Amino acid sequence: MTTEKDILDAHSIMHGKIEIIPKVKIESNQDLSIHYTPGVATVCNAIKDNRDLAYEYTNKGNMIAVISDGTRILGLGNIGPEAGLPVMEGKSLLFKRYGGVDAIPMCIGTTDEEEIIKFAKQISPTLGGINIEDIESPKSFRIVDRLSEELDIPVLHDDQQGTAMVILAGLINSLKLAGKDLNKVKIVVNGAGSAGMGVVRLLALAKVKNVYVVDTHGIIYDGRNEGMNEFKEEIARLTNPEKDKGSLADAAKGADVLIGLSKPNVFTADIVNGMNEKPIIFALANPMPEIDYDEAKKLGAFVVATGRSDKPNQVNNLLGFPGIMRGLLDSRAKKVTYSMLYDAAVALADSVGDKLSTEYILPSVGNPNESVGVFENVAFAVAETAVKESNSRITDLDAIKSTIRKNLERNRGLHEKLSKN
Amino acid sequence: MTTEKDILDAHSIMHGKIEIIPKVKIESNQDLSIHYTPGVATVCNAIKDNRDLAYEYTNKGNMIAVISDGTRILGLGNIGPEAGLPVMEGKSLLFKRYGGVDAIPMCIGTTDEEEIIKFAKQISPTLGGINIEDIESPKSFRIVDRLSEELDIPVLHDDQQGTAMVILAGLINSLKLAGKDLNKVKIVVNGAGSAGMGVVRLLALAKVKNVYVVDTHGIIYDGRNEGMNEFKEEIARLTNPEKDKGSLADAAKGADVLIGLSKPNVFTADIVNGMNEKPIIFALANPMPEIDYDEAKKLGAFVVATGRSDKPNQVNNLLGFPGIMRGLLDSRAKKVTYSMLYDAAVALADSVGDKLSTEYILPSVGNPNESVGVFENVAFAVAETAVKESNSRITDLDAIKSTIRKNLERNRGLHEKLSKN
Repeated sequence: MTTEKDILDAHSIMHGKIEIIPKVKIESNQDLSIHYTPGVATVCNAIKDNRDLAYEYTNKGNMIAVISDGTRILGLGNIGPEAGLPVMEGKSLLFKRYGGVDAIPMCIGTTDEEEIIKFAKQISPTLGGINIEDIESPKSFRIVDRLSEELDIPVLHDDQQGTAMVILAGLINSLKLAGKDLNKVKIVVNGAGSAGMGVVRLLALAKVKNVYVVDTHGIIYDGRNEGMNEFKEEIARLTNPEKDKGSLADAAKGADVLIGLSKPNVFTADIVNGMNEKPIIFALANPMPEIDYDEAKKLGAFVVATGRSDKPNQVNNLLGFPGIMRGLLDSRAKKVTYSMLYDAAVALADSVGDKLSTEYILPSVGNPNESVGVFENVAFAVAETAVKESNSRITDLDAIKSTIRKNLERNRGLHEKLSKN
Repeated sequence: MTTEKDILDAHSIMHGKIEIIPKVKIESNQDLSIHYTPGVATVCNAIKDNRDLAYEYTNKGNMIAVISDGTRILGLGNIGPEAGLPVMEGKSLLFKRYGGVDAIPMCIGTTDEEEIIKFAKQISPTLGGINIEDIESPKSFRIVDRLSEELDIPVLHDDQQGTAMVILAGLINSLKLAGKDLNKVKIVVNGAGSAGMGVVRLLALAKVKNVYVVDTHGIIYDGRNEGMNEFKEEIARLTNPEKDKGSLADAAKGADVLIGLSKPNVFTADIVNGMNEKPIIFALANPMPEIDYDEAKKLGAFVVATGRSDKPNQVNNLLGFPGIMRGLLDSRAKKVTYSMLYDAAVALADSVGDKLSTEYILPSVGNPNESVGVFENVAFAVAETAVKESNSRITDLDAIKSTIRKNLERNRGLHEKLSKN
């Protein structure tokens, strides 16, 4: 049993979770004169004449920032930038451990939308990509949309896009097992935050029509007045074509899929009993799901997925972001698109292979040494779509794939070396 | 002979010079639940209630940013943020290799003074310190002075403060060899940029009166009209008490010490011949000094120092910043003060020990494995003064020294491990 003290001790023993190391040896004046003055001037001059050479001669192409203003850290709310650091360091740790991506935690001391946008733009020359993390919505949506528009490096919103990609992958496999067609099922999403928005946008891209989103005011419909904003208006346009009104229970009647991105215990027995046959339930509130895994199974759910690692079918965004970013960086993509995410979801679903069952709809990633292939598949899919959409600086897909493979292989070796005493 | 191609190849083989690694093992769901969700929430909550705990539970206390706007990269001028990256990565590499400090290169896309200040303040919650690098003066002075005033983490201006510290250390040892007293000699500084400013402020702190600074308009004096700004006014107040006017040659007449922070070949034979007996010449323009080492010796110079590693007496700012920052971080200092730098210079001068000679006034640092003691001495001196000035969050000097020792020892071990194949 891990206690709070164990967790605090694990964080204090090394003072945090990441550090920076040299990639080159410095053991003599000769080394110094190559990597620092006077030799480095040669490299500066080359980049001055062609900014893109920064991808060649510096770590820019593998360096991202994980930017947060501390306003929506986990389920803890607005706890400030310093208190958000353990999460952003953790995210950076996982970006590297699983995807070989160098990620810098940047918890910043402003919550102003324009200031956050300006900050991200100012730091962008140093970076190959940006991940926006744990910023309250809908501010986060506006920030990501603006940055995607105005920058020529990819800006990922993992809370929205990465999570939605993983959910879609799990959904694809669940429907395959149930023998149902994504374009014919009724899907209800409870919760209109970041992940809900991402799921809606992904399903809309796949032309799935029969989708309903429920928030604290009930089903979202075109013309509703309570609790709307520009992004809920977008949801209203993309879902619920008949403009149905009602509660979560109303929406869930006859639903094939129920996705919870909300709060504990709101999926009651009545709601589950009202669903179509072979009900698929993703209860993703963390750490306590909308319905307990075993209880949902007892009520006859065909597939149940939660955010918990102690039950089958963990929907873990860790399955997404390292591979997505690997693909974005190695293709030198300029934007994140929902087509990339859709194709990544298909690739992630395929990664399950022969192991696919109602108890195993997504790969398990607890041991990173055993799951390199999963991240490679996701990265390949993202890169392939980037090339197809003319959205990448590198256009030779085979070359990109070889870079992805090489980077993941080097990363595996690095962690092996580091784990030796 | 290292060619330009060798240098470019050395930079492209790994795509840059630094990367980020985990400090903790991730090999299971249990590890994930401690370092990421759900366990990390415990750590966030602890810091939320006491921001200073970020020093305990995250890498904040060992993480600094190397911030540049690309306006004064080496001697290359304003070449933009991307082209500045190889230098900032190199600086970050050296911060870690020699001082165990995690430094993030941040080349930013704005050259506006207020915007740079705002950027540094916004990123500060993530950091234990900041190093301002290669920003044109006098803008850089205003930025550093403002940030030092408004932030409670140390803001080092290595171009100004670190370099001046190393110069003073070399000067202390040179004067010791010459049997002259710092407070009685005549010192001429040619160049009123960052390093010149730092030297003037350090000498003023040491109450050295007989100092003259020369810029392109000649000797700086109180009341001069040409080419002045608020910082040259400060130089005028701190030096040249008799308000002497004239050229570099005029200033150098009878000087004991001539410090060049200017451009190649401006220290002519006439100038050297006009100096006092046992002339001490620091010709620090890079890569070509104000006077060639051998030529100055031939003209009878008692001590000659340059920025070159192929001659004796290299004045290398690498002798300063890693140890200075180590001392600042481990004492959790709030400010950089000139008293710290003065005491660090004395410690650095002492580090030379029995090897002291006119051909060896400063330690050599080409091999970092042989020079750990130098950085420890500098760090100790900085920390001791921080505690004395009530400028540190940690007040137990013995505890700080033990942390410094532990961090440098761990760093030595880390690089040893990394250098194994």
